[in-house]
Amino acid sequence: MEKLREILGKVHRGELAIDDALQLLRDLPYEDLGFAKIDHHRALRRGVPEVIFCQGKTPEQVARITRQMLEKGVNIMGTRADTRVFEEVKKIAPDAEYHRDARIFAIKRATVARNKGIIAVVSAGTSDIPVAEEAAVTAELLGNKVERLYDVGVAGIHRLFMNMEVLKRAQVIIVVAGMEGALASVVAGLVDKPVIAVPTSVGYGASFSGLSALLTMLNSCAGGLTVVNIDNGFGAGFAAHQINKLGGQEDGCALS
Amino acid sequence: MEKLREILGKVHRGELAIDDALQLLRDLPYEDLGFAKIDHHRALRRGVPEVIFCQGKTPEQVARITRQMLEKGVNIMGTRADTRVFEEVKKIAPDAEYHRDARIFAIKRATVARNKGIIAVVSAGTSDIPVAEEAAVTAELLGNKVERLYDVGVAGIHRLFMNMEVLKRAQVIIVVAGMEGALASVVAGLVDKPVIAVPTSVGYGASFSGLSALLTMLNSCAGGLTVVNIDNGFGAGFAAHQINKLGGQEDGCALS
Amino acid sequence: MEKLREILGKVHRGELAIDDALQLLRDLPYEDLGFAKIDHHRALRRGVPEVIFCQGKTPEQVARITRQMLEKGVNIMGTRADTRVFEEVKKIAPDAEYHRDARIFAIKRATVARNKGIIAVVSAGTSDIPVAEEAAVTAELLGNKVERLYDVGVAGIHRLFMNMEVLKRAQVIIVVAGMEGALASVVAGLVDKPVIAVPTSVGYGASFSGLSALLTMLNSCAGGLTVVNIDNGFGAGFAAHQINKLGGQEDGCALS
Amino acid sequence: MEKLREILGKVHRGELAIDDALQLLRDLPYEDLGFAKIDHHRALRRGVPEVIFCQGKTPEQVARITRQMLEKGVNIMGTRADTRVFEEVKKIAPDAEYHRDARIFAIKRATVARNKGIIAVVSAGTSDIPVAEEAAVTAELLGNKVERLYDVGVAGIHRLFMNMEVLKRAQVIIVVAGMEGALASVVAGLVDKPVIAVPTSVGYGASFSGLSALLTMLNSCAGGLTVVNIDNGFGAGFAAHQINKLGGQEDGCALS
Amino acid sequence: MEKLREILGKVHRGELAIDDALQLLRDLPYEDLGFAKIDHHRALRRGVPEVIFCQGKTPEQVARITRQMLEKGVNIMGTRADTRVFEEVKKIAPDAEYHRDARIFAIKRATVARNKGIIAVVSAGTSDIPVAEEAAVTAELLGNKVERLYDVGVAGIHRLFMNMEVLKRAQVIIVVAGMEGALASVVAGLVDKPVIAVPTSVGYGASFSGLSALLTMLNSCAGGLTVVNIDNGFGAGFAAHQINKLGGQEDGCALS
Amino acid sequence: MEKLREILGKVHRGELAIDDALQLLRDLPYEDLGFAKIDHHRALRRGVPEVIFCQGKTPEQVARITRQMLEKGVNIMGTRADTRVFEEVKKIAPDAEYHRDARIFAIKRATVARNKGIIAVVSAGTSDIPVAEEAAVTAELLGNKVERLYDVGVAGIHRLFMNMEVLKRAQVIIVVAGMEGALASVVAGLVDKPVIAVPTSVGYGASFSGLSALLTMLNSCAGGLTVVNIDNGFGAGFAAHQINKLGGQEDGCALS
Amino acid sequence: MEKLREILGKVHRGELAIDDALQLLRDLPYEDLGFAKIDHHRALRRGVPEVIFCQGKTPEQVARITRQMLEKGVNIMGTRADTRVFEEVKKIAPDAEYHRDARIFAIKRATVARNKGIIAVVSAGTSDIPVAEEAAVTAELLGNKVERLYDVGVAGIHRLFMNMEVLKRAQVIIVVAGMEGALASVVAGLVDKPVIAVPTSVGYGASFSGLSALLTMLNSCAGGLTVVNIDNGFGAGFAAHQINKLGGQEDGCALS
Amino acid sequence: MEKLREILGKVHRGELAIDDALQLLRDLPYEDLGFAKIDHHRALRRGVPEVIFCQGKTPEQVARITRQMLEKGVNIMGTRADTRVFEEVKKIAPDAEYHRDARIFAIKRATVARNKGIIAVVSAGTSDIPVAEEAAVTAELLGNKVERLYDVGVAGIHRLFMNMEVLKRAQVIIVVAGMEGALASVVAGLVDKPVIAVPTSVGYGASFSGLSALLTMLNSCAGGLTVVNIDNGFGAGFAAHQINKLGGQEDGCALS
Repeated sequence: MEKLREILGKVHRGELAIDDALQLLRDLPYEDLGFAKIDHHRALRRGVPEVIFCQGKTPEQVARITRQMLEKGVNIMGTRADTRVFEEVKKIAPDAEYHRDARIFAIKRATVARNKGIIAVVSAGTSDIPVAEEAAVTAELLGNKVERLYDVGVAGIHRLFMNMEVLKRAQVIIVVAGMEGALASVVAGLVDKPVIAVPTSVGYGASFSGLSALLTMLNSCAGGLTVVNIDNGFGAGFAAHQINKLGGQEDGCALS
Repeated sequence: MEKLREILGKVHRGELAIDDALQLLRDLPYEDLGFAKIDHHRALRRGVPEVIFCQGKTPEQVARITRQMLEKGVNIMGTRADTRVFEEVKKIAPDAEYHRDARIFAIKRATVARNKGIIAVVSAGTSDIPVAEEAAVTAELLGNKVERLYDVGVAGIHRLFMNMEVLKRAQVIIVVAGMEGALASVVAGLVDKPVIAVPTSVGYGASFSGLSALLTMLNSCAGGLTVVNIDNGFGAGFAAHQINKLGGQEDGCALS
Repeated sequence: MEKLREILGKVHRGELAIDDALQLLRDLPYEDLGFAKIDHHRALRRGVPEVIFCQGKTPEQVARITRQMLEKGVNIMGTRADTRVFEEVKKIAPDAEYHRDARIFAIKRATVARNKGIIAVVSAGTSDIPVAEEAAVTAELLGNKVERLYDVGVAGIHRLFMNMEVLKRAQVIIVVAGMEGALASVVAGLVDKPVIAVPTSVGYGASFSGLSALLTMLNSCAGGLTVVNIDNGFGAGFAAHQINKLGGQEDGCALS
Repeated sequence: MEKLREILGKVHRGELAIDDALQLLRDLPYEDLGFAKIDHHRALRRGVPEVIFCQGKTPEQVARITRQMLEKGVNIMGTRADTRVFEEVKKIAPDAEYHRDARIFAIKRATVARNKGIIAVVSAGTSDIPVAEEAAVTAELLGNKVERLYDVGVAGIHRLFMNMEVLKRAQVIIVVAGMEGALASVVAGLVDKPVIAVPTSVGYGASFSGLSALLTMLNSCAGGLTVVNIDNGFGAGFAAHQINKLGGQEDGCALS
Repeated sequence: MEKLREILGKVHRGELAIDDALQLLRDLPYEDLGFAKIDHHRALRRGVPEVIFCQGKTPEQVARITRQMLEKGVNIMGTRADTRVFEEVKKIAPDAEYHRDARIFAIKRATVARNKGIIAVVSAGTSDIPVAEEAAVTAELLGNKVERLYDVGVAGIHRLFMNMEVLKRAQVIIVVAGMEGALASVVAGLVDKPVIAVPTSVGYGASFSGLSALLTMLNSCAGGLTVVNIDNGFGAGFAAHQINKLGGQEDGCALS
Repeated sequence: MEKLREILGKVHRGELAIDDALQLLRDLPYEDLGFAKIDHHRALRRGVPEVIFCQGKTPEQVARITRQMLEKGVNIMGTRADTRVFEEVKKIAPDAEYHRDARIFAIKRATVARNKGIIAVVSAGTSDIPVAEEAAVTAELLGNKVERLYDVGVAGIHRLFMNMEVLKRAQVIIVVAGMEGALASVVAGLVDKPVIAVPTSVGYGASFSGLSALLTMLNSCAGGLTVVNIDNGFGAGFAAHQINKLGGQEDGCALS
Repeated sequence: MEKLREILGKVHRGELAIDDALQLLRDLPYEDLGFAKIDHHRALRRGVPEVIFCQGKTPEQVARITRQMLEKGVNIMGTRADTRVFEEVKKIAPDAEYHRDARIFAIKRATVARNKGIIAVVSAGTSDIPVAEEAAVTAELLGNKVERLYDVGVAGIHRLFMNMEVLKRAQVIIVVAGMEGALASVVAGLVDKPVIAVPTSVGYGASFSGLSALLTMLNSCAGGLTVVNIDNGFGAGFAAHQINKLGGQEDGCALS
Repeated sequence: MEKLREILGKVHRGELAIDDALQLLRDLPYEDLGFAKIDHHRALRRGVPEVIFCQGKTPEQVARITRQMLEKGVNIMGTRADTRVFEEVKKIAPDAEYHRDARIFAIKRATVARNKGIIAVVSAGTSDIPVAEEAAVTAELLGNKVERLYDVGVAGIHRLFMNMEVLKRAQVIIVVAGMEGALASVVAGLVDKPVIAVPTSVGYGASFSGLSALLTMLNSCAGGLTVVNIDNGFGAGFAAHQINKLGGQEDGCALS
């Protein structure tokens, strides 16, 4: 920024011809053009916690990154965090909370705008719950109301029908399923709203670590279904939040 | 419905005990319980054209299905339709329109509610345009304003930056890309709104008919990105419409 | 057989010691031990038509094989037979029938025992009908009553519920589905009978020519589901017949 | 159910017009229509133990689920259960039995109808026995007589021929094989009855954790062969039971 | 550019405070900041022909794109161009040349700087020649001397040794091979210079359309080997040019 | 060779010091060291026809290559040759023979040593015959006696047993099978001799163009089984010849 | 055997008509026809040790199987045996030997015929040695002379040329290589004898646990190359033995 | 060499006719022709450290190999070396250095020529740093100046633009990225110099251990991009060195 101000000063004082200034501007490094600001604005506009993907990091590394982020006064969430990570984080942020099933820790230091709509998180089997919780807790931390509807896989599809009110109340639906992943198609065939499908790596044999569920979901004939990576509960919760935000926020914020 | 009415009539006339009626109701076939109505409602609630996937059907088959649908007075669109299909359809519906690049024909017989928000359709290369157009025309037929931003692949990424206003104006963004599919990540990294990625089968060698682009998009680190099947422009346009609808409709319709 | 008879004759006449005869028997070629009879018996016991897989054969080759089989007086069916094949076959067997949708021709020269139970053939989409018909016609030619329930994919799952009587009447169910293949799981979750799933190569993109549907079906959590090869309508019809036969035959045949 | 009874009461007392009642019925939540009963009936009709898939669950979780199920008075079986799971289960159900090779625990609290036919379980190698036992014990717990024929892989195919009587006696055959999986084809080529093939993950290198055996079995030219997921002994045993049931039950139960 | 000049003019004339100017600059659309120039410079700096990937385009489409490019006075090359494409191009550019084996047409309108070093193009089998030629002609059109060494696959490895002088003379080596692709490893093991490997889709069966050769090359233990996409002769020629340029240019141009 | 002779001449005449000669020798191009001879010897030692892989070549290209080879007086065989190729070849070599099923043409101009042992070629289905014939004719042209045993797939395994004499007579066995490919394992389990397995691309669905058969064969538990590429009848015939040669040749040639 | 003897006795004494005897023979179980003997003969004819594949078995299981085999007086070898297995085996067979690199234990109780020819085992990298040793020790235990040539990968191909005498002396060659697996092609291109390629799972990344090397070897253009499963050193050693045996045995045994 | 000198001596003394000498030379083993020298020269010419790939070797094995190499007086580097390996190496080479992040140990005993150009190493995420460091440290040990630019993934692409000076200064660029791997395309689209892409196995789900990033990079539309194996930081650093060397060396060495 200083260089840019300097150039403008010279133009102002007639020390630099306009054409020469134009030439100089073209050759300025990007950051001097205030490019960095865009990122800053983007961060504020998102109003979302800073996110640490803890898998593959030591508890100490996570703690160090957390400490740096805390200085900015933002909210923080850590995904794929086991209890050892949480214990280390708690040392530097005693107010940190731990969502065990979701494997997420959260530190809240700033207020979050609340979205009006509800996000429903539907899951097929008991083993899919960690991914479903990762999606649900992520959505909650981002300012959404979440309703959970677990253990409604297609092998017991009547249980889904008995709980259709949940699907009706929701503005966005996240479906989490491993093995054959057929639940996502069934749900998307019943409703007329955005459905985000999360394949999980639950299964064995020809589930090929989630590939089967992923392909099923991508091939769904039911309109409106979109898919995220295998086990990516965070991604689904984040995308659902962005969609849900379009339906308005409780404090009357205009949409970005 | 007649059976149900008959049972109620008997209950009303005291010819049938309430417990016996309860028992009979449990054993009624589903359609007699008015189950079919749910489907009907769903169709109306969606307010979307009936869709014919023409690929793998003869022009005659498409025309026959079209004729049946026309009797219901609904809007109709046919995807993956070549000119031979269109010519056959035109014989029975002279008002049919053909979107050549999108390979879509459309017959409009009913009014469509308009969504307020804009959907941006961004594509990487010239060869991706048919899929991009399938997404764009689908979204338009469903009642959305669409802005197109084509040929902005990562190999010439400055062209994307020169057109960021389009991304800023949009409420939902569809990114269509084959080969390496990196454009979706780049776009999702720049904005804070729902982004739907469509991998295309464009490419050769290790693109493996779209697998490479599909994997790239699923693995994106950029939050908010969801993915549909390879070449599934229709699915992306449909999902974008469902999301865009959440931002409100021009004629003030309440959201479903 | 002659050699075996000769040995026994020598034993009978005392020309051959029993120990030497034992040794000779061990060294006889298999066919001389009447091994071939096993195959013969098997063919009769099956009571099924001889089957010609026509794909990859010229009409002339199919006709030549047909002519050889006709001499045995058995029933014949040809699968994956196009009209050109049928025309050639008709020249040598004017009573041949052609099932166009199933791509099967049939020549009936012997009576077939009828099974008591019903086989239901359920399919997801219009494009799956050729494979569904291959299964249905195969089962019919083998002596089974077949009920068809088509176009009941999970995207419109209420249509399946409205026709549950078909599932209830059946003794064995064949489910034919491409794309995501979720229909098989849904059906198997609703009933308590053998369900045979046939993935089809219908679809595009990440359906990978039927791989997606195949994996979905193999990973189904619904008990009792077994799977055959992609597009293998014949195999499903054949297996369903073998199962259905266990429920008894109309003319009172004992089970084999 | 209460709401439904209330509506009928009002109709009976003339407090509600029949047309209005019809309208109300259409809007009732599903469970109030007695939908749940279907599931209940289904459970009874199956007459099968409740099944717990223990893999990926802690011994404590399995014990907790077991305790809940025991209250219903049903039979229970747990698959993929190691000894630690069994010990925990035994604390709450001292009559629990453990089938070590099959990795199955069973708690019998209700009588099971016995099927007349025999199920043969054939396996190729020693390492395939755990999966074969999972199939065999499952079938036994469901009320079937089972004959085992182990270690008869194609590399020593004469051993299979020496035991053909087992194949002849059986009404349904389960074939369990890893590595090349060819045994299933050989068996299906020798008999005229339903054969269920179970690929196993036994092997190394290009066995790709069971993929090789799976593909072999799916591609079998032998009619009547159907396939379940890799290592899915339970699924094979369950499907074989459903088929075997068609041949009649010892206590003369009518088939469902 | 006009807006930027206008802002500077106002600053110069004292009509705009510097801080306000800074603010305005931050909000300027990118193109107004002269961003587009970067692309322009980049094009000039590369000094390379504009490239049209003709595969999947009609001859008419290629001709139209060619005409637009010709107006800029740049060199043009079209890859994957068949004779029908060339004939159409020739109508609008009679000086266009066609390299039949390489499937490349070229139109030279500007001088190209010549690199000092030699690029060797080595190929394994006769069927690999089209890809090898695409690489060789691309490199030539970009201003490089190219030596070809064809038909020296590992099955006849002595032929490679008899021509090692070619490898020694070269500054960069491109190795083109299908089937097992082992040639790239052998060459890279013999020399101490950059080697670019191009797998080809030549082969059948387990070559899986070039996947086998691709994996072989990626796994090479020989240092210095890098790989491009299957059949991507153009990419290899282009990368080799960029590397070769580092060794200096004949007309004494400084390196960019 | 001339340079080498020249150096030795100078050493002989004392015009060149021995140390200098050593230095010169090290720097000689390889061909001058007589390296080429190795190839020549190898060609003679093999005593095999020169082979042209015709797939992907025009009839004219094959004819041109054939003409060049004919000048060397060697035997020639062309694989994957259709009738159009043969007709073109016949113009320049009227004594060329065509093996239609094997898709091989052969031109015999030199005598071939005959191996003593027999090679058996066993195939599973009718559609596998082209590959089986490619193997059989290749082996015959290389100087081997071949016995064919076709249509003995595992679905009709008794036919294999009825012809075990063929397996017993053979010194090397080639097994050709598509779909599930189990035949190779069965044969290798019955004999104690080298067995070469050739997977074919015959099949559909999960045969994945031969991948299924390939994996089956690689995973065979039967000792002594080795595998070649999918559809590579030529490779199998060639390898069988090399093995069969070890058992001695009729004219008493010493083994190489 | 007793039943067969009894039948012959009755024929001999005239108690059974020949036609009735023929009928009885056809219905005899296979083992009574002396079928088992075939297996016995096969075992003797092979003259090879009984083999135990120890991977996935506990040391106790291996010891128990070993004890059973020892009673037959045959030679025994155990592959994939770690030191814990060996220690357990040694308790029951103190004369057992352990080949650490090959992970093989051997117990010699019978003499083995020696083959005349030499088997060369060539390997690419240090990490491939365990598989190479498995092949080499297997071949030695089966009665072959083995020469090892290790660490001659294509990245240092001159080392292979400096040791070509080993290749020349051998009658059969085994090539063991991971990563890119190109060594097999290079060796097969240099010699005119049977070459067996063993891909290994050595490597990382795109070696995909040996898939890369496997595909390379299957796609080799060099004639005479056949392939076994990834890491299957035993299979290669066994096949090489069967081939080497054709070249004659030292004690003048006729070939089987 | 002695044999060669002896032959020349005999020629010189007239004890050996030139033709006989020629014959003898042809039959000399390769090493006697001074072939080994080529390797020696190659090693010296490369001027690179001897490299030990430590993964899969015990610390003791690495130490033993290191000791052997030290005797040659060359530089040594060990890749994929954990701290246990380093501790063992330090015992025999106290001057060994350890680069923890790069998992490389280095022993410098000889001077290395310095290249003039700069190599930039760019990486996408924190988890990619070990591979990036392996590339960077490798390049440094080979005599290159390296600039690191980490954590500039496409999700935060503005950070890349803010540091474009690094890309501009570099002569060769290495891009390291896992997950979607899009960074490589973005970088190659911005510059006009050789870019080497290294996919990493960082990620989960559909990243398939680096396959996704690998395919993305191979399919890049950006010219000049070449790719190495997944996680192959060493290979990238080595190739970048070979390319960078072409731009000249600081001590004025002529290029090889």
